Amino acid sequence: MVPKEWNIKDAYVKNSKGERIIDFQKSNLHVVGYSVPVHKKVSLSELREHLHTLPDHPEWIPYRTSYYNENWGFCLSYKKFKTLEEDTYEVYIDSSLEDGNLTYGECFLKGETSEEVLLSCHACHPSLCNDNVSGLTLVALLVKYLSTLQLRYSYRILIIPGTTGSITWLAMNETNVSRVSHGLVVTCVGDPGTSTYKRSRIGDAEIDKAVEHVLRHSGESYNVVDFSPYGYDERQYCSPGFNMPVGCLSRTPHGQYPEYHTSADNLDFVQPQYLVDSLSKYLAVLYVLENNKKYLNLNPKCEPQLGKRGLYEKIGGDNEGKIRQLAILWVLNLSDGNNTLLDISDRSGLQFDLIKDAADKLLEHRLLKESLE
Amino acid sequence: MVPKEWNIKDAYVKNSKGERIIDFQKSNLHVVGYSVPVHKKVSLSELREHLHTLPDHPEWIPYRTSYYNENWGFCLSYKKFKTLEEDTYEVYIDSSLEDGNLTYGECFLKGETSEEVLLSCHACHPSLCNDNVSGLTLVALLVKYLSTLQLRYSYRILIIPGTTGSITWLAMNETNVSRVSHGLVVTCVGDPGTSTYKRSRIGDAEIDKAVEHVLRHSGESYNVVDFSPYGYDERQYCSPGFNMPVGCLSRTPHGQYPEYHTSADNLDFVQPQYLVDSLSKYLAVLYVLENNKKYLNLNPKCEPQLGKRGLYEKIGGDNEGKIRQLAILWVLNLSDGNNTLLDISDRSGLQFDLIKDAADKLLEHRLLKESLE
Amino acid sequence: MVPKEWNIKDAYVKNSKGERIIDFQKSNLHVVGYSVPVHKKVSLSELREHLHTLPDHPEWIPYRTSYYNENWGFCLSYKKFKTLEEDTYEVYIDSSLEDGNLTYGECFLKGETSEEVLLSCHACHPSLCNDNVSGLTLVALLVKYLSTLQLRYSYRILIIPGTTGSITWLAMNETNVSRVSHGLVVTCVGDPGTSTYKRSRIGDAEIDKAVEHVLRHSGESYNVVDFSPYGYDERQYCSPGFNMPVGCLSRTPHGQYPEYHTSADNLDFVQPQYLVDSLSKYLAVLYVLENNKKYLNLNPKCEPQLGKRGLYEKIGGDNEGKIRQLAILWVLNLSDGNNTLLDISDRSGLQFDLIKDAADKLLEHRLLKESLE
Repeated sequence: MVPKEWNIKDAYVKNSKGERIIDFQKSNLHVVGYSVPVHKKVSLSELREHLHTLPDHPEWIPYRTSYYNENWGFCLSYKKFKTLEEDTYEVYIDSSLEDGNLTYGECFLKGETSEEVLLSCHACHPSLCNDNVSGLTLVALLVKYLSTLQLRYSYRILIIPGTTGSITWLAMNETNVSRVSHGLVVTCVGDPGTSTYKRSRIGDAEIDKAVEHVLRHSGESYNVVDFSPYGYDERQYCSPGFNMPVGCLSRTPHGQYPEYHTSADNLDFVQPQYLVDSLSKYLAVLYVLENNKKYLNLNPKCEPQLGKRGLYEKIGGDNEGKIRQLAILWVLNLSDGNNTLLDISDRSGLQFDLIKDAADKLLEHRLLKESLE
Repeated sequence: MVPKEWNIKDAYVKNSKGERIIDFQKSNLHVVGYSVPVHKKVSLSELREHLHTLPDHPEWIPYRTSYYNENWGFCLSYKKFKTLEEDTYEVYIDSSLEDGNLTYGECFLKGETSEEVLLSCHACHPSLCNDNVSGLTLVALLVKYLSTLQLRYSYRILIIPGTTGSITWLAMNETNVSRVSHGLVVTCVGDPGTSTYKRSRIGDAEIDKAVEHVLRHSGESYNVVDFSPYGYDERQYCSPGFNMPVGCLSRTPHGQYPEYHTSADNLDFVQPQYLVDSLSKYLAVLYVLENNKKYLNLNPKCEPQLGKRGLYEKIGGDNEGKIRQLAILWVLNLSDGNNTLLDISDRSGLQFDLIKDAADKLLEHRLLKESLE
Repeated sequence: MVPKEWNIKDAYVKNSKGERIIDFQKSNLHVVGYSVPVHKKVSLSELREHLHTLPDHPEWIPYRTSYYNENWGFCLSYKKFKTLEEDTYEVYIDSSLEDGNLTYGECFLKGETSEEVLLSCHACHPSLCNDNVSGLTLVALLVKYLSTLQLRYSYRILIIPGTTGSITWLAMNETNVSRVSHGLVVTCVGDPGTSTYKRSRIGDAEIDKAVEHVLRHSGESYNVVDFSPYGYDERQYCSPGFNMPVGCLSRTPHGQYPEYHTSADNLDFVQPQYLVDSLSKYLAVLYVLENNKKYLNLNPKCEPQLGKRGLYEKIGGDNEGKIRQLAILWVLNLSDGNNTLLDISDRSGLQFDLIKDAADKLLEHRLLKESLE
């Protein structure tokens, strides 16, 4: 199932003067991924059959692979391609395809329960920034922060080659899959585009509701799209035999920005402010998951007297006080054991944090208790 | 839980010439409700801390209370307030706060069954017309009319102080609450605004469907809003421990008209034609509830021959005949024991009365019988 | 229940010169259907009480019947009607109303299973083209074509007089009704109007989904309307005692085109290209029904390797290849035993044929098996 391990030391195309006109040492994008080894002299016309360019973006080098087809090739800018003259070229790819190992990173943060949140990102696209490194960066920052907290859930972070990595992990962890209560595929999180959430195959799992709540209250435009069996590793997590509650929270989705899979997916395209914005949305989602419990109103028949408990704020008063008061009334009204705090947030239209704060105050005054069933 | 009983005999503010410049005898709105007794001389600046006005509406006296804060105060028009000069004022409030009684009105009309329709209105806002007396007036008219009819449901009418009244009634009638099949809070029914229905917490109870049907066919614009735990006594009836099927049918909701809780909520604002319009909508709702039964088509396989029974009206003919014929066909088609007449009305888009008349004709011709399960 | 059998040999109105000014031999629409026999002399004014015209369309003869009213009458163009002068007229209708037979056509095509698809059209409107003969023509073409195929379902085609025919058939086949898995009433399929589907009383039966899928992907505008208990024989099939999954797929519905029930519903109005278009939609619907099965992904944990099976098509490649690939991924992802191919088509937004082709390829490669429960 897993293809052979591909390694490469060097590759170039030299002209008859011996000049490296395409040089793997300058950019690893220059070689088609998974190219078989080759060393021979070819005419310009034979060479051209193995060259890939982007005429619409003449400065950019495309990123190409050929996993399932034994072949070799080079990628270069169209501008460079236009300068190639009739000549005898030496092509050289010092690669190997051998039985090897599939290496991936796995990090586990132990929380209070054995229920897990899965965060999965891919590390298989050489030199690509948004469609690879942005995800790694975000999960690294998340892990650093989460490891300072007391957590309800355990967190499992996977840094894997796309497709083969998730298939391998799932094959080796089949029995543990049921521990994953919520999951996100982390990718394309550093570009200037709109936040986009792709729902899990389940469609209305808690992770779906949590992400949609956060985006709805973000004050920014956003997109939510239904699950489809094409994209990143959610394809595997959401295959029918697993059907895990795993969505994908990104900015511009794969293939929808021109820099996608080209040398222009670089540090000009990915910017810190977008990465930080994505991080803050991931943190907000995890805050919801960590705190999304059900409570029971201990005084369910009529409203308790809030005034004598210092919980009364005049609704006619300032707007913040009014909203705090409404949050308290909503939590009391809907805490019948059937509604999570997220359900209450969504029905009331109030942001999760406000509902959580109201629940905390009511817990403190023994007007609420956690519902454990 | 219930606060002490507040009574007041007199109250005024006199200037140093002994003139009553604010006088409870002229309007009981002049005293902040629940003011503690006071009798002392104060400077203008101290007096001002206890005065309430409406600068945006300089002619109006606001209505204020201070239930949960031991305090005293006066309300006056901003116009009057502007005339106050530096002086020594005598403030006098002859009130008492003592253990007492909570008085409320309860009226019961016995119907054929012990299932009840609850109509609840509040009587606690002194001198306010729409946000208090309009509800009393409407239920008084309703009771007068209902008492002349043979009724399916029993009717319970509550005239109570807001919040404390409903809490008290619920506490004293906890075991009877399950008898209430449908309920409405009656308030703000005399202003010129659009009819507004606030759904019960259940959201799709029969009362919700009945009121929405009536408003949809009223030929006028209307609003329907979801339940929220803020408003009138539906807050208590719909607390999670009771979760009664009680909505609120009003015109402009509380707080959404400038006259709300001011001396301008008076008989200029409330007009007979609006009260009559509200009454007719309440009657239409009760007509639906009284007649909303399920029937069984006794000839369920194919259509019976309507012609020989005199039930056939040419659909190509006049419009009224056509609609009567369609109503008969809809009742026959959907009377399978699963649909109430209201369900049939809503699925067909035809008004309840037409569906009810069709059912009556079909009963007469023994094509239908009541479904009792 | 079934009215007496009406037969007619001749009918005319002659003027005093003995000229046949209205002549049944020229158009059988000239006589009101179900007219009782008559032979007498009448004045113009008496004659007029028995004449029917269409002043808005002075060239057209209306089509009228009088099933449930013993009467006689003639239909004629308003133009002709205007020429009638004061005279003594001889009216003659040589008709008979006697106990007789209800004749209808029934055709049965045996398929692999005893589950049936019912196709029902009416044959009771003399000389009308769209609202009668178009349905007969379409089912005749369908039967001719279906009889050349190996079919999963058995097909039952009924050619019946409207209302009485379906009631009679249902009465005689009560126990077989449960065999009908899907059905359509075929009528008004030759006019230039938009395709219109009237749902079954069930509303979301497989036939409803199949027809709506076909119309949605037809590339043309179309209408879908909810069931109502007025129209053609679906009224009887969908009566509550049967509640069969039978809808009605037509072009312009009855009564919504001016030619309806007039001599203008003729071969100028009905055109071959519209009939062919309707036929192709019926065939597409039957294709869906015949092939709408559930499958099980035999490799449900992660995606199987499509490349080595020759099932991999680069999504970045040409559009058709991309869509074929997506269809394969959707079928694999949703074939968990809960989704039919039509469900997969509707969730993916892809046309049924593409999904069916993908399933066939996957079956061939033993990645799928039929789910029989």
